Amino acid sequence: MIFAQKLQEVCRQNNSLLCVGLDPDPAKIPAGQDIASFCKAIINATSAYVCAYKPNLAFFEVLGNDGMKILKDVIQSIPKNIVTIGDAKRGDISNTATAYAKALYDYLGFDCVTLSPYMGYDSIEPFIRYHNKGVFLLCRTSNPGAVDFQQLKTQDGHFLYEVVAQKASQWNTMGNIGLVVGATASDELKNIRDICSDMTLLVPGVGTQGGDIEKTVRLAVDKNGLGAVINSSRQIIYASKEEDFAQKAATAAQALRDEINQYR
Amino acid sequence: MIFAQKLQEVCRQNNSLLCVGLDPDPAKIPAGQDIASFCKAIINATSAYVCAYKPNLAFFEVLGNDGMKILKDVIQSIPKNIVTIGDAKRGDISNTATAYAKALYDYLGFDCVTLSPYMGYDSIEPFIRYHNKGVFLLCRTSNPGAVDFQQLKTQDGHFLYEVVAQKASQWNTMGNIGLVVGATASDELKNIRDICSDMTLLVPGVGTQGGDIEKTVRLAVDKNGLGAVINSSRQIIYASKEEDFAQKAATAAQALRDEINQYR
Repeated sequence: MIFAQKLQEVCRQNNSLLCVGLDPDPAKIPAGQDIASFCKAIINATSAYVCAYKPNLAFFEVLGNDGMKILKDVIQSIPKNIVTIGDAKRGDISNTATAYAKALYDYLGFDCVTLSPYMGYDSIEPFIRYHNKGVFLLCRTSNPGAVDFQQLKTQDGHFLYEVVAQKASQWNTMGNIGLVVGATASDELKNIRDICSDMTLLVPGVGTQGGDIEKTVRLAVDKNGLGAVINSSRQIIYASKEEDFAQKAATAAQALRDEINQYR
Repeated sequence: MIFAQKLQEVCRQNNSLLCVGLDPDPAKIPAGQDIASFCKAIINATSAYVCAYKPNLAFFEVLGNDGMKILKDVIQSIPKNIVTIGDAKRGDISNTATAYAKALYDYLGFDCVTLSPYMGYDSIEPFIRYHNKGVFLLCRTSNPGAVDFQQLKTQDGHFLYEVVAQKASQWNTMGNIGLVVGATASDELKNIRDICSDMTLLVPGVGTQGGDIEKTVRLAVDKNGLGAVINSSRQIIYASKEEDFAQKAATAAQALRDEINQYR
C-alpha cells in the first residue's frame, strides 16, 4: 500500500491527525522501565488515538551497540495500520543516500522518514524511488536557529524555506513527498500550505515547544481536513513519571487528538 | 588534546593532508572479507600515509543490528594519532542534537563529525560545546544537487553556501568548526577560502568524482600549506578487488598523498 493511502486510512480509522514522537530519554522515563518496555507501553496505551508514531533515531543511537536492535523491536510493536515515521533528518549524496534508504526502509521498516534538503535532489531521489514509502523534507523547522538560513530571502524575493517548498512540490511526481513545518512559525506554515496545497505536512512543535493548537491545525490541514500530521512528544510520553505513565499518556493523547479535531 | 592540534600534528608526522573515506560496500569488497576485516586491513596498510579516516555511517547503519558495534570496532583499530571523522551529516534540534553528539563523540569516539547546517546554530551548539572535538559543516557539496539550494543567491548578493561560511566563521569562537567543500566546485572553494582564511576545509570529490587535484589543493590549503583535509574513498579502498587489495590501497594512498604534497 502506498504511504499516502495508508496515512489517510488510519487518520479516518482512529479519527486522528495526532503523531506521537518517541524520544525516550533514560533520565526521564519511569523507574523500572527500560527504553523498549517504556516505548512499547506508550504505544500499547495510545495506539487508538494516533495516526502515526515518530521515533527519533538519535535517542536510539545514543544507546550504543544495541540501539538499532531496540529501535527495530519498538517499530515492530507498532500496530500495522499505523504509519511509522523515522525521524532521521538524513541527507547525503546518492550512493550513501541509497545505503541510508536501505537501513531506514528495508532494515528498520519505516513507512517514511525525515530528510534534510540541503544537498538537493540527488540526496532525496534514492528515497522517493521507493514508491510505496514517503519522505518529509525539512522546510521550516520549529527551533530558534531556523531563522539562520531558512529565513534568508533570495534575490527572487522568496525565503529559502519557500524555495524548498516549491522544489519539493516539483519533485513530488510520485505523491510521496511531504514537508516538516514547525507549529511555532504560523506565518510560514500558512505560506507553505499556500505553495503546497495538496502535500502532507508533518508539524512538530505544539505543546512543550509552544505552538498554538487551534491556529496550527486550521493552517495545516488541507481542504478535506486531512493532509497534516501533528506531532507531540514530551507532552504525551512524559505525562507522568509514575507507574501510571502509560495510562496518563493515553489520556493526554486522547485529549490532544480531540482538541486537534475541534479545529479541522 | 584539541582537535585542531591533533590534526596539525598528524599532518606533520605523516606529511599528509590525505583522508581516506571508509565507505565499505559489501558488493565491492574482496571475496573472503567482511566489513570489519576489510576496513581494518585498509587502515593497517594505509595509516602511514594519511592524516584522517572518515567512516560514513550509512554504510554501517545498513548492516542492521550489529552495524554500530562493527563501526566502533573499526574506529578502535585506527591508530590513536590519526584523526577520525564521523561522516554523519546529522542536524536536529537541541535536545536531539545532544543525543547525536553523545552517540558520535562519547559512544563511537570520533574526533569530529560532519553536520548539516539547515537547522541553524542551535543544531550545531551541542556539538561545538565539546571543546576538544570538531565539526565540519556542509557548505558547498560535491554532488550535482548542490546547486538546488546551496547556489541560491540571497538579496544581499551572496550565495547560500557563502552565508553558511560567514555564519560558521562567526560561530567558530572555540576554533573547532570546519567546512565541507567539494573539489568539483573550484570557484566556490576559492570563495570559501577567502571568507574563512583560517578554518579547516574537508574536501571530498577528488578522484572518482572528478575534482582536479592540483587546482583543489592550491585553493584549499591555508597560507601554511595546512588547513585542508583532502578525502578520497573509492580510489583508495577499491584500488583492487583481489587478495592484494590492502597493498594496492597503500600504493594508491601513498601516490595520492605525494601528488597532493606537490601542490601544497
